[in-house]
Amino acid sequence: MSAIPYKIYLEESEMPKYWYNLRADMQKKPAPLLNPGTRLPMTAEELSGVFCQELVKQELDNDTREYPIPEEIQSFYRMYRPSPLVRAYCLEEKLKTPAKIYYKFEGNNTSGSHKLNSAVAQAYYAKRQGLKGVTTETGAGQWGTALSMACSYFGLDCKVFMVKVSYEQKPFRREVMRVYGASVTPSPSDTTQVGRKILAEHPGTTGSLGCAISEAVETAVSNPGYRYVLGSVLNQVLLHQSVIGVEAKIAMDKYGISPDIIIGCAGGGSNLGGLIAPFMGQKLRGEKDYRIIAVEPASCPSLTRGVYAYDFADTGMVCPLAKMYTLGSDFIPAPNHAGGLRYHGMSPILSELYDQGMMEAVSVPQTSVFEAAEIFARVEGILPAPESSHAIKVALDEALRCRETGEEKTILFGLTGTGYFDLVAYEKYHNGLMDDYVPTDEELARYTAKLPKM
Amino acid sequence: MSAIPYKIYLEESEMPKYWYNLRADMQKKPAPLLNPGTRLPMTAEELSGVFCQELVKQELDNDTREYPIPEEIQSFYRMYRPSPLVRAYCLEEKLKTPAKIYYKFEGNNTSGSHKLNSAVAQAYYAKRQGLKGVTTETGAGQWGTALSMACSYFGLDCKVFMVKVSYEQKPFRREVMRVYGASVTPSPSDTTQVGRKILAEHPGTTGSLGCAISEAVETAVSNPGYRYVLGSVLNQVLLHQSVIGVEAKIAMDKYGISPDIIIGCAGGGSNLGGLIAPFMGQKLRGEKDYRIIAVEPASCPSLTRGVYAYDFADTGMVCPLAKMYTLGSDFIPAPNHAGGLRYHGMSPILSELYDQGMMEAVSVPQTSVFEAAEIFARVEGILPAPESSHAIKVALDEALRCRETGEEKTILFGLTGTGYFDLVAYEKYHNGLMDDYVPTDEELARYTAKLPKM
Repeated sequence: MSAIPYKIYLEESEMPKYWYNLRADMQKKPAPLLNPGTRLPMTAEELSGVFCQELVKQELDNDTREYPIPEEIQSFYRMYRPSPLVRAYCLEEKLKTPAKIYYKFEGNNTSGSHKLNSAVAQAYYAKRQGLKGVTTETGAGQWGTALSMACSYFGLDCKVFMVKVSYEQKPFRREVMRVYGASVTPSPSDTTQVGRKILAEHPGTTGSLGCAISEAVETAVSNPGYRYVLGSVLNQVLLHQSVIGVEAKIAMDKYGISPDIIIGCAGGGSNLGGLIAPFMGQKLRGEKDYRIIAVEPASCPSLTRGVYAYDFADTGMVCPLAKMYTLGSDFIPAPNHAGGLRYHGMSPILSELYDQGMMEAVSVPQTSVFEAAEIFARVEGILPAPESSHAIKVALDEALRCRETGEEKTILFGLTGTGYFDLVAYEKYHNGLMDDYVPTDEELARYTAKLPKM
Repeated sequence: MSAIPYKIYLEESEMPKYWYNLRADMQKKPAPLLNPGTRLPMTAEELSGVFCQELVKQELDNDTREYPIPEEIQSFYRMYRPSPLVRAYCLEEKLKTPAKIYYKFEGNNTSGSHKLNSAVAQAYYAKRQGLKGVTTETGAGQWGTALSMACSYFGLDCKVFMVKVSYEQKPFRREVMRVYGASVTPSPSDTTQVGRKILAEHPGTTGSLGCAISEAVETAVSNPGYRYVLGSVLNQVLLHQSVIGVEAKIAMDKYGISPDIIIGCAGGGSNLGGLIAPFMGQKLRGEKDYRIIAVEPASCPSLTRGVYAYDFADTGMVCPLAKMYTLGSDFIPAPNHAGGLRYHGMSPILSELYDQGMMEAVSVPQTSVFEAAEIFARVEGILPAPESSHAIKVALDEALRCRETGEEKTILFGLTGTGYFDLVAYEKYHNGLMDDYVPTDEELARYTAKLPKM
């Protein structure tokens, strides 16, 4: 066995040729999406008005374990993948821990995160179906940027509805999307019925993700040749993101490394679901055991304090119902700088696995997350995104526990992206102005009381 | 010979163990730095009041061809190097050119550019000399960020004087430096004599790089245990940056690739000097010929329209005199978004090589640079820095020429960094507000008329 290098990059010939469908190994499958009107499982036909045909197939397929990655997508992946699997030697030394820490770094591309892995797949299938373009929403802007890059590559039109407050406060993200030729509309806008309705009812509103989703969906279904795409939560997204875990596992196997603990931040679940896929597969098949930990912000604790129930995916209630751990579709988390973790629900796949006791979840306050981010940045040389720093925080906690116990555990965590567009948050942290609000039980109960009756 | 992958990453065992000192192969050496008072060559003793001893040695050493890279620096390099040598397959396809285009991408680290290669070396030697800290100036902030990262790693204090207008307009760069524990002072400041003098004479001034240099030098020489460090122009900086070229050459040799044309942007010359080092060495020794092209902004054309003469390195005229292509030390280029290319002079090594006819230079207007940047970003998936995009522009021009002639030339260019902190510039470009001012001959003559009489 060779010594472990600082960074493991797979050769092109070693890169994954397939995505790994976690659902194939689940005895009890995730609950199906329901039609919000009939409350019956959504059919492929119903879904194909909103999503591309191939993506509908992937969304509904609970059985096929391995999906070959089309050659065109593999080509695009070669532009920015493999992502490095990094041995955090400097961090280990700083913490004086016997633990061996690894992270899979997904931030070395211009979208700044793992989102590109699914964006390229969704854009590819849209193109192959002969569509003109796609619509989506974006909050902080990582997903919108990723989708813009993918659409530009395949020559597809890309219409992004960006939450108005982000559009105004994050002009740089908007400019990156413009570099890639996307049209970016602040939401709510007067370009859709739902947007005009919201503007009439709430003049001066700065928008919300739920409203932007509703506008994007309306635009997709009312424009021939367009479909709607989503960057997280969906089964298809976790399937595409499995490229993270499959790559990580190939790299670890090559060097004879086996993680004891796997940690990822969890908002809608796309990164965590992708990172753990092949490992969870082994665990589900009883071949191997891993501790798997989802980390969420204390201000938006869907797994740790939500309920497992059918709920709307969007505040506009136009999307299908999903069974998931949820805080209620109109729960608005307190200001938190991890925009990508502010979703009220959680991937149905991860929700079901959590319910089955196959993984753990913890929630962490945001100041502690930025403390961890800064420790990490100083020794590992990467400025992490606030979302990713949730995973760093718990990796540090576990590594320090090993220092206490003397155990040489192997820790793998997902470093989803970089924080170059999050410096307002770092500034607040430096100036001691960061908020650590945690919702009360009463507050959470008010929102979950409004869950749809099934 | 294996097929050429999209990205070539060296194995750790293949990474450079030495820096390459270009001067060793020059028959006619670059002119020495002169004491601004006596006009005699600066001695090691004089220089060591300002710079670390080991760096003074490197600055003055025109003969040693290979400098072993200390193990501690190699360790740091392994955190973010090797940088990928990328085969621009997607760009070639987009341009329909028979040319083979490669770029060496130095942007995959949090400082966002190649500057870290020299920052870590300078911080290391300062630490080894037992110093408390270092001072420097920064304009756009790439160098300051790189130095902050390096100092944080080695536990050195880092005092950065940041041009006031940048400090105010680029708060995000400032926050990244704060993440790494640097103190960042807007310049001119009341913490130095020179700063107070400038503030008294020009109340309300937004500062300049020259003024920030003078404050950083004063702070270094008046605080025991501190030295001044500089991110470009100097011979020592080109030495450290040779890691770019040595890595690129090892990667190319491994795959049997030989570039016909090597292109780099040139401000102070640190990136270009580093990239070309081993190739220029072969050319100087008569072993092989390469076309080597320096690209500079039309608004700051030191090589293409400057004069080759002794000049001050800073506007405060406290630094040694250097013989270089210069526009005059008080030349202030028209607003241009490539902050890193706005220096009035050019590395003495590159100046001498250009004077000997060993390399070419071209200047390009900034709108054409952003056009090239956007073409590149859309197909290669990397948002380039405005500085780096100067090299892209000329690489595109050469590739398109190959399309005309049918020649299958191999082009290598340096992609020095990412443009995440330059989106104000991209926004101006998108909104058609970009300026392409080119100085007139009369204007340039006014500044060069004031060069010091020798």
